[in-house]
Amino acid sequence: MRSVALPSRVVRAARTNARAFSSRSIIPDEPVKPQVHTDAVPGPKSLAISKDIDQIQDARTHVLVADYEKSSGNYLVDADNNVLLDVFGQISSIALGYNVPQLIELAKSKEFITAALNRPALGSFPPKDWAKWLEEGLLTVRPKGLDHLVTTLCGSSANETAFKAACMAYRNRERGGAAFTQEELDSCMLNHAPGSPELVVLSFKSGFHGRLFGSLSATRSKAIHKIDVPAFDWPVAPFPNTQYPLAENEAANKAEEAKCLAEYEEILIQHKKTRPVAAVIIEPILSEGGDCHASPEYFRQLRLIAKKHGAFFIVDEVQTGVGATGKFWAHEKWGLKEGEEPDFVTFSKKMQQAGIFHKLETRPNAPYRNYNTWMGDPMRTLQAREIIKVIRDNNLVEHTAVTGKKLAATLEDIFSRNQGVVSNHRGQDDGTFQAFDFETPAKRDAFVAKMRANGIQVGGCGDRSTRLRPTLTFGDAHLAILAEAIEKTLKQI
Amino acid sequence: MRSVALPSRVVRAARTNARAFSSRSIIPDEPVKPQVHTDAVPGPKSLAISKDIDQIQDARTHVLVADYEKSSGNYLVDADNNVLLDVFGQISSIALGYNVPQLIELAKSKEFITAALNRPALGSFPPKDWAKWLEEGLLTVRPKGLDHLVTTLCGSSANETAFKAACMAYRNRERGGAAFTQEELDSCMLNHAPGSPELVVLSFKSGFHGRLFGSLSATRSKAIHKIDVPAFDWPVAPFPNTQYPLAENEAANKAEEAKCLAEYEEILIQHKKTRPVAAVIIEPILSEGGDCHASPEYFRQLRLIAKKHGAFFIVDEVQTGVGATGKFWAHEKWGLKEGEEPDFVTFSKKMQQAGIFHKLETRPNAPYRNYNTWMGDPMRTLQAREIIKVIRDNNLVEHTAVTGKKLAATLEDIFSRNQGVVSNHRGQDDGTFQAFDFETPAKRDAFVAKMRANGIQVGGCGDRSTRLRPTLTFGDAHLAILAEAIEKTLKQI
Repeated sequence: MRSVALPSRVVRAARTNARAFSSRSIIPDEPVKPQVHTDAVPGPKSLAISKDIDQIQDARTHVLVADYEKSSGNYLVDADNNVLLDVFGQISSIALGYNVPQLIELAKSKEFITAALNRPALGSFPPKDWAKWLEEGLLTVRPKGLDHLVTTLCGSSANETAFKAACMAYRNRERGGAAFTQEELDSCMLNHAPGSPELVVLSFKSGFHGRLFGSLSATRSKAIHKIDVPAFDWPVAPFPNTQYPLAENEAANKAEEAKCLAEYEEILIQHKKTRPVAAVIIEPILSEGGDCHASPEYFRQLRLIAKKHGAFFIVDEVQTGVGATGKFWAHEKWGLKEGEEPDFVTFSKKMQQAGIFHKLETRPNAPYRNYNTWMGDPMRTLQAREIIKVIRDNNLVEHTAVTGKKLAATLEDIFSRNQGVVSNHRGQDDGTFQAFDFETPAKRDAFVAKMRANGIQVGGCGDRSTRLRPTLTFGDAHLAILAEAIEKTLKQI
Repeated sequence: MRSVALPSRVVRAARTNARAFSSRSIIPDEPVKPQVHTDAVPGPKSLAISKDIDQIQDARTHVLVADYEKSSGNYLVDADNNVLLDVFGQISSIALGYNVPQLIELAKSKEFITAALNRPALGSFPPKDWAKWLEEGLLTVRPKGLDHLVTTLCGSSANETAFKAACMAYRNRERGGAAFTQEELDSCMLNHAPGSPELVVLSFKSGFHGRLFGSLSATRSKAIHKIDVPAFDWPVAPFPNTQYPLAENEAANKAEEAKCLAEYEEILIQHKKTRPVAAVIIEPILSEGGDCHASPEYFRQLRLIAKKHGAFFIVDEVQTGVGATGKFWAHEKWGLKEGEEPDFVTFSKKMQQAGIFHKLETRPNAPYRNYNTWMGDPMRTLQAREIIKVIRDNNLVEHTAVTGKKLAATLEDIFSRNQGVVSNHRGQDDGTFQAFDFETPAKRDAFVAKMRANGIQVGGCGDRSTRLRPTLTFGDAHLAILAEAIEKTLKQI
């Protein structure tokens, strides 16, 4: 592919990046560009393998079949030997890239092999270095004010672990710390109140919090995620219908946010009388539901209003967490003061080890209440420790913030030449966590497919949005290739 | 420790084991006996480490802190360097033992390292060898009639994946395969019927199916597992209050089972009018709830009655699966005829890769319905493949059946000399998956603690039961040590 000149704003932004970073310092063998050999991606080998898999396990959702041994850094190689620049990262779950040498070294260590092969019942027989692994890893990135954690296996179970902790703490507060009554102990065995309380979790329109029965009840992304699955009668609050670009729509967005906040508070008040809201859950950017943004002040108000009405506040950073927004946690931008911290921050995906950060006050009042067999996975905790180390040693959060600015300027430049095709570019202040819309779902799907044929794996979200979720090692060279492909693809669809 | 003479029945049973097996053929470096250096287990180092961990993560449930690098085969080494014979196996989740050399070799392979470090979004970007890995591993042990699978991350999510598939298939059948209505699509976004249907999952008293919101609604083990967590109003059917030994109580147990089956069918009938039962879930041996047994014919009737009333039938083999009962799947003993197979069999724990086996007819009618980011973990699938290979190459299921007979005879011999202390010995025909009761929870707890001081890690279940969950490599030498410790401990409590 020929190289493209970056717009002048990008060049200016690049100059501000004093410590230039190249992904090659972390992944020396990374390919230099995409290579597509087949007419379309997936190619014939991918399609044949998917057909084989489909005899055993549903393959209708396959995008392509990957060759992970050959993949490297920001480049995903598929079964047809196509080399794709991956800015989707396994649905936003790859932090640094494929086959990062420092992680491969970790995987060869006795510590890692021991952890991988001897998965413990972590709540009962933890490994002797468990505290050390947390202190050197997960705890170094704990959100301010949240000094405790529970590890889990995935984002859905992280959110449900937070829901459980919130409900337990809520009832404990209602009981004034008193012991369970016999009626509570008996009725919960029948799934009836008061033992199984009529508490609810409030979530927001277009929010996504997982696919298990509790998390799915809080998920409000798409009907296909929810239909036919029994759900708790939990309330949904409106999320602001934000207009982009933010700078040009400040007044309208502020009014919209005020309206939504009022509706949200009204739900909290109304439910207090019947089925109180034990927890409010929100993503800092509603990702799966279409990369929906709102102002820091809106989120701060959400938190304060939840507190006012006694609901615990859960920030779901499963997709937004671990640096891609230019902060380690996206909610760092909300300007929460001391005492205003979330009650829970949940994480998974890029962190590999899932879990919740929380305050001591939401630790259940008795053991074995928020417990299960595995409770996380030490090998994933070691992986998280190493990922965090690479991020810290290479200033990758700052790098992503800088790269995000360049990406924003580049995309604005391209989109200014393609008005009417692409709209609602957003996330300009959120590192590389950016998105934009097409006129219709069909046009978005065509763009994603054609981008793949042009050597780039991007993702969709919402009905007609494309989301960019590159790794934290995505840099100038990748950006130039991405920009050229977008420019080319927009002309083709 | 001195060796004990095995009772004559054990010796007879051993003679029938034509292909004598020693765990040393799989784990050459396994210790020869327990070694306890501290006055009690947990010792001072374990306690100090737990205290450190408790500053970060709830440590009240810790039994001991382990040194997994030093652990080997059936022996768990703790932070104080105590060597314990482990017949609990991380809550029944260790198939072969600690640090099994063949698995360590696997962990060093490029295939495993690649899988461990590049966890894919399996439903969208599967690895090219995925079908092969399944065909060589999980599929070779698929229950008869269930040729399809969905991989998940844990037992709870396996069960909830089955619940979701059952509800989707149930509604699809009700709709006669027609498309979703607009009302369904709209109402599910509000968690309301008809889109979020009033379907229920029926489970049984003392059943355990997990700790997330759907699986916990089906769990009926202990109040401490359920209290304060909102639950679906799902029905619970009685499980037979079986009298032991089975041979002496045949008539009474048969009558009890008939009574329970009638109540169960009545629940199915009553619910059909209001909130139909989409799925029935049961464990072949209700493990967490106290190792509750019933006859094969009882389980066969459960299945047939579910079918009669249109409910899908889920067998939860999370704890019973993978050989410990002397069959690969415990439900193989039910004598189900062709066409009577369960609709779903769920698995996790010893298999390391969790998931569900199912029939094609319960694959959702559209993609992305029973989908999530990770959908299982290829490195755990590789681990499962290797575990299955070791089991197959060493006839470990048959070995466990034979060892179980010896264990049963040995325990009966010991208990006959300790009548009044131990009762309800059960599982004599279920490999090493055996249990027995004490008079009170306190006496059971004292037994488990004292056994640990005597060098053996056993587990509790139910209110006053002890469960044995040794690995599949547990053999004659371990049995002799276990027998001696039980004999000694019973005299001490």
